[in-house]
Amino acid sequence: MGPRQSFHDNLNNLVTDLLIMGDLVEQSIQKSVTALKNQDLQLANEVIEQELIIDEMELKIEDKCLKLIAMQQPMAKDLRKIATGLKIITDLERIADHAHDIAKVAIRLGSEPLIKPLVDIPRMAEKVQLMVKKALDAFVQENIDLALEVCKDDDEVDSLHNQIFRELLTYMMEDPKNISQGTQLLFVSSYLERIGDHATNLGEWLIYMVTGERKELND
Amino acid sequence: MGPRQSFHDNLNNLVTDLLIMGDLVEQSIQKSVTALKNQDLQLANEVIEQELIIDEMELKIEDKCLKLIAMQQPMAKDLRKIATGLKIITDLERIADHAHDIAKVAIRLGSEPLIKPLVDIPRMAEKVQLMVKKALDAFVQENIDLALEVCKDDDEVDSLHNQIFRELLTYMMEDPKNISQGTQLLFVSSYLERIGDHATNLGEWLIYMVTGERKELND
Repeated sequence: MGPRQSFHDNLNNLVTDLLIMGDLVEQSIQKSVTALKNQDLQLANEVIEQELIIDEMELKIEDKCLKLIAMQQPMAKDLRKIATGLKIITDLERIADHAHDIAKVAIRLGSEPLIKPLVDIPRMAEKVQLMVKKALDAFVQENIDLALEVCKDDDEVDSLHNQIFRELLTYMMEDPKNISQGTQLLFVSSYLERIGDHATNLGEWLIYMVTGERKELND
Repeated sequence: MGPRQSFHDNLNNLVTDLLIMGDLVEQSIQKSVTALKNQDLQLANEVIEQELIIDEMELKIEDKCLKLIAMQQPMAKDLRKIATGLKIITDLERIADHAHDIAKVAIRLGSEPLIKPLVDIPRMAEKVQLMVKKALDAFVQENIDLALEVCKDDDEVDSLHNQIFRELLTYMMEDPKNISQGTQLLFVSSYLERIGDHATNLGEWLIYMVTGERKELND
């Protein structure tokens, strides 16, 4: 087995690592919002523990990427692929951070009665989780159309965020007792909106990897 | 001039680039909160334009780092230094993002009367700006004590955030008319708290660079 063969094995390993990390991150989003909705503190604590594992994975994959670059001196598209890997893990880790933030809100609220049944927040969570999944599929398939789709999905997430924001404000204005929890839920909605932005970034990195051009798809 | 000499010139250039980027980021923090406090929309727009420049700088420095690794195959501490550079620009860019978020709040509030004169938020901004400055100084001087100081400062920032949070909630409970702006200011306080976390990360990267060990100084 020549050194190039082993280089491409290493690249394939890198893709596998990214997918494992991505899978954990997707789970964290889903679990964090389920914990919030069902006031399930055990599940919230799982998310918090999972974030430590995801952080570790980021550092390990990063080390691998840097060593791969240093030892194999890849050029052009291979270098871009590894550089894309470095960017992807950064965005995945930020997404996990936000899932962790949501889990912390779930813990903060504890068993205090929710001011309203949560419907739109779980729907938003489902959408952003799907965006992350699509973006990673787009990366594996080097599928630019799929990456562009992720970007379109983000518009829906943004308008859902606006809608949730307005609705929560009305609850808070109706009764001052709703203000404290209302602000917590506003934060949750803004964390999910951020997750959508990071998923869009994932799509952008993929386009860079394939074309060599940086393109800003959201602002 | 041998290739090693030129490698170290490149490393020095990298440090200079980081400091220029860091300086812009510090300015953004300060300008964004001044814009909010003085309701100065022109200044807020400057911050938003500056963020684009900072994003560009991040991409350029990143390219430089990756090419330096690919072409010079640095080992041990030199590789760590470049890896640290890559992490630093990521955190600096996130800080600039949050300054941009604060500027957007300033624009959203426009000339609507503030529910209270802003005192603690500017104080918090000053503190986190100083943390960024200290962390970059620590990086240049490879000064671990200074990096540890940054971490201690973050405790103060966190308690200032809690204090602001509680105070704003009382304003919101007193008068529903304060709720909408109150939530915007809550977000500002949480952006500043995040900036403090990123400055702490900068300190952690420096410790990694010098010692080769990853250490979590905040959670």
